[in-house]
Amino acid sequence: MARCRLCRNEKKRTPAEIYLPAHRLPLCRQHFVEWFERYLERTIRSFRMFSRREKILVAVSGGKDSLTLWQALTSLGYEADGLFIYLGIEENSFSLLSRRAVEATAERLGRPLHIIDMEAELGFTIPDLRKKTRKYCSMCGSVKRYYLNQLAKRLGYQVIATGHNLDDEASSLLGNLLNWNLKYLARKYPVLPEEHGFVRKVKPLCRFTAKEIRTYAEIKGLPYLPESCPLSEEATRPLYAELMDELEEKAPGTKLRFYLEYLRKALPLFAEKRENFMDKALIKCERCGEPAVSSPCLVCRLKEEFKNHAR
Amino acid sequence: MARCRLCRNEKKRTPAEIYLPAHRLPLCRQHFVEWFERYLERTIRSFRMFSRREKILVAVSGGKDSLTLWQALTSLGYEADGLFIYLGIEENSFSLLSRRAVEATAERLGRPLHIIDMEAELGFTIPDLRKKTRKYCSMCGSVKRYYLNQLAKRLGYQVIATGHNLDDEASSLLGNLLNWNLKYLARKYPVLPEEHGFVRKVKPLCRFTAKEIRTYAEIKGLPYLPESCPLSEEATRPLYAELMDELEEKAPGTKLRFYLEYLRKALPLFAEKRENFMDKALIKCERCGEPAVSSPCLVCRLKEEFKNHAR
Repeated sequence: MARCRLCRNEKKRTPAEIYLPAHRLPLCRQHFVEWFERYLERTIRSFRMFSRREKILVAVSGGKDSLTLWQALTSLGYEADGLFIYLGIEENSFSLLSRRAVEATAERLGRPLHIIDMEAELGFTIPDLRKKTRKYCSMCGSVKRYYLNQLAKRLGYQVIATGHNLDDEASSLLGNLLNWNLKYLARKYPVLPEEHGFVRKVKPLCRFTAKEIRTYAEIKGLPYLPESCPLSEEATRPLYAELMDELEEKAPGTKLRFYLEYLRKALPLFAEKRENFMDKALIKCERCGEPAVSSPCLVCRLKEEFKNHAR
Repeated sequence: MARCRLCRNEKKRTPAEIYLPAHRLPLCRQHFVEWFERYLERTIRSFRMFSRREKILVAVSGGKDSLTLWQALTSLGYEADGLFIYLGIEENSFSLLSRRAVEATAERLGRPLHIIDMEAELGFTIPDLRKKTRKYCSMCGSVKRYYLNQLAKRLGYQVIATGHNLDDEASSLLGNLLNWNLKYLARKYPVLPEEHGFVRKVKPLCRFTAKEIRTYAEIKGLPYLPESCPLSEEATRPLYAELMDELEEKAPGTKLRFYLEYLRKALPLFAEKRENFMDKALIKCERCGEPAVSSPCLVCRLKEEFKNHAR
């Protein structure tokens, strides 16, 4: 077995338990954690995501990505608190187990955790929404982004951090290229600045593969929930993810290069023409005051609709 | 079995023997040929490739694509002649069988065929080149393009047509996107205008899949050689082609949409910035007068090298 590259620098002969093909790096468990956190720090700096003087709100779902992000940011000395949205998904006790994973992590890190109960806020859960519309999956995303942004502003957080990883970014980039979704291609940057009533949003794990993140979560013993949402019905994303996995398997480093070269070379070209394919201007919802493409916004409309039905 | 859509229009009840999933079109054999030629005509017109008053030189290799192109252009009444380059590949009698396929097609179509013997022109064959360099595969392409262009000018052809199909275009587009090869992405149009000493070049089969072309070649009984070059060593292209095939299988029409939307929406963005990533300006080779990136050009340098070795 190869020896840990970083131990070798320290004149030790520890066998490497982990091999990172994209970085051609054999590492022992301890140095893997060190590498992970150092590479995260470099990502945060090189994209100018945030500083140690800013308060960060991490969107935590209970999965490996968001819990790893929360753990690693805290280890690095960032002031990062959690926000969990309780969606009321009873299948496989998904929401309950997710909340427990998040609470256990909060306790372990000694950081504040904010919890929003979707039913209390909106008058309905995701399973309720699913009975009404086939678009519940994308709507769930919209609702979560809405509360994340609203809460960050209310509680004075300067930055929202989400756990999107390299697999997510590379496969959605591929999907958007295959469909030439220019609107998306023009703004897929891992930092979206504060503007139009939106808090700054960042994706600090954008250079880490799902596998690297899982390794970190396991070494650290994070109590994450391995299952993905039982109601998720994304049809084509897994296909693009599989294709990227095949490419990565044959040529390690493909995902990272594909994504980083896009950010460096192609995104600026798309972004320059952004106004040509941005279809809807942002306005302010006249009920809640949040930025939206229509007024009342989606969340206010859903609230109204479910209130009428409950009567 | 479904009935032929076009027979149905003619109030006949012929069963469809062919189904085109990307076009959702069931057709009988006769109407498939009609559809193929009509769609080719539409492609030629919509990209303004050439008119019936122009002389076209078709680069024929003996494979299904180039022979189909030659046959269909002739059926449509275009003045299309063939150019075959004898590369001297003895493995599996490849060059010999290719030349026979091309000659049989010329006879059948009653059209002139020009044959260039690489060894007579250059003093070496592709197998000779292969003994000297690992880049023989891309050099073979360069040498063929050189003679195609030179001969077209000398013999007064206004247009060079090649058999590149949708599978080629979509998979090389995917490969160039995964590597963000902007230089290529800025000029992947199926028509390259006459400029800098280059004759106009077109790819009339760019909207047809390999499968559609094979069907046409088989119905027409074209004597094409089914084997691809025994010396071909492209490592990653087949992978991208496989990925595109998988996508096409799951969502028929993906290749065509991916390619056409690129031409319509993305290529103009890349092309606008073309001068930023065109690395080398074109000059004139001081020996042969052909356009090249260096002088002497690749072909003149190879000639020289092999002459010296023969002494």
